[in-house]
Amino acid sequence: MMSRKKKAVVLLSGGLDSATVMAMAVDEGFEIHAMSFSYGQRHSIELDCAAEQARTCAKEFKVVEIDLRAFGGSALTDEIEVPKHGSVEELPTDGIPVTYVPARNTIFLSYALAWAEVLGANTIFIGVNALDYSGYPDCRPEFITAYETMANLATVAGVQGQKLTLHTPLIDLTKAEIIKRGLDLGVDYAKTNSCYDPAPDGRACGHCDSCLLRLKGFADAGKKDPRKYVQ
Amino acid sequence: MMSRKKKAVVLLSGGLDSATVMAMAVDEGFEIHAMSFSYGQRHSIELDCAAEQARTCAKEFKVVEIDLRAFGGSALTDEIEVPKHGSVEELPTDGIPVTYVPARNTIFLSYALAWAEVLGANTIFIGVNALDYSGYPDCRPEFITAYETMANLATVAGVQGQKLTLHTPLIDLTKAEIIKRGLDLGVDYAKTNSCYDPAPDGRACGHCDSCLLRLKGFADAGKKDPRKYVQ
Repeated sequence: MMSRKKKAVVLLSGGLDSATVMAMAVDEGFEIHAMSFSYGQRHSIELDCAAEQARTCAKEFKVVEIDLRAFGGSALTDEIEVPKHGSVEELPTDGIPVTYVPARNTIFLSYALAWAEVLGANTIFIGVNALDYSGYPDCRPEFITAYETMANLATVAGVQGQKLTLHTPLIDLTKAEIIKRGLDLGVDYAKTNSCYDPAPDGRACGHCDSCLLRLKGFADAGKKDPRKYVQ
Repeated sequence: MMSRKKKAVVLLSGGLDSATVMAMAVDEGFEIHAMSFSYGQRHSIELDCAAEQARTCAKEFKVVEIDLRAFGGSALTDEIEVPKHGSVEELPTDGIPVTYVPARNTIFLSYALAWAEVLGANTIFIGVNALDYSGYPDCRPEFITAYETMANLATVAGVQGQKLTLHTPLIDLTKAEIIKRGLDLGVDYAKTNSCYDPAPDGRACGHCDSCLLRLKGFADAGKKDPRKYVQ
């Protein structure tokens, strides 16, 4: 018997945001086809987290190998040092972070688009967030809108009038709002990694941009982060 | 000393069209950074041709490994049989060919975009062609325009006002016009593969959609195709 659930491709990074997005997609009744990328990340904990999250929620989980290191240019994939700060107040407030990976979301969404077409899925979920500190151009609403327009011209499904939509349920939420929503939906945030530079045993550093924003989010939400930290 | 030439990323498939595009980009004075994809093609002759073309024209040649087979859905990457026809008149005139690969140009362009940003290149050349028989939605001008809009919102370079343009010099040319232009520029078409189903020794089949269009193009141009054919 065919499943009567609508299919959705969910981009899963192993982090807090995309884990929350997947829980929201489940809550909306979608059948989840989760996709992660192995792209020369310096640590594998993200993919371990993504796999563990997918195991409980997704019908299918696919890890696509891509080699973004070939292009260089990012602290997440290169030998550039991940910047550390004492507190969230010390984060730079403008400019592009060195952790920026060229065209990363564009590439990820393109694979999601290919998979969606093969699956006959009309929906892609991605956990981009335009608020908080970010500075990534490919997390802005105008990028998402332009991508959706392009995607509907790119595929046979689009040409045949089967409109694809990108769902970005976090785009206007604060980190605290995301966390509250996820906790309501039962997300286990112990199994999410946000840290750009985790210790060999998997504990988060607590001082990279991403750890600081996460910790502030939990503090603002009045919740305790179940993730293990080095200090 | 820095090169004073403008850099361009050129997508090279090993085929007739993109070899012509590269020659046009050289003719326009660009420094060529050529990019091909290893995507589970059933034969490697395309990549051999691309490498040989790049050797004479490009400053740099990169082959990116991607696994489109993971998604299935195309005669070029799957176990679906490549359709053969007796003549160009027998080609289907509407519909999407079974050789369609979901989101292929979207994925290829996304890698080109990443590389262009790292290189500081403002130009990507792609040999799409909207005329002749094709039926690929991601070869249409409206797709290219939408991709360019998206790309300029996706990157730091774009945000900082360094506009990226997609050059599609073949988009309105007939196959015969492409061939005449390429011959004027000295393209060696013996070193290009168009065949979807070449013989083990590399000769073209002469009966797939792509061979028939190529042969008609040479005939219309009044030129002889230097490519070796099975019959």
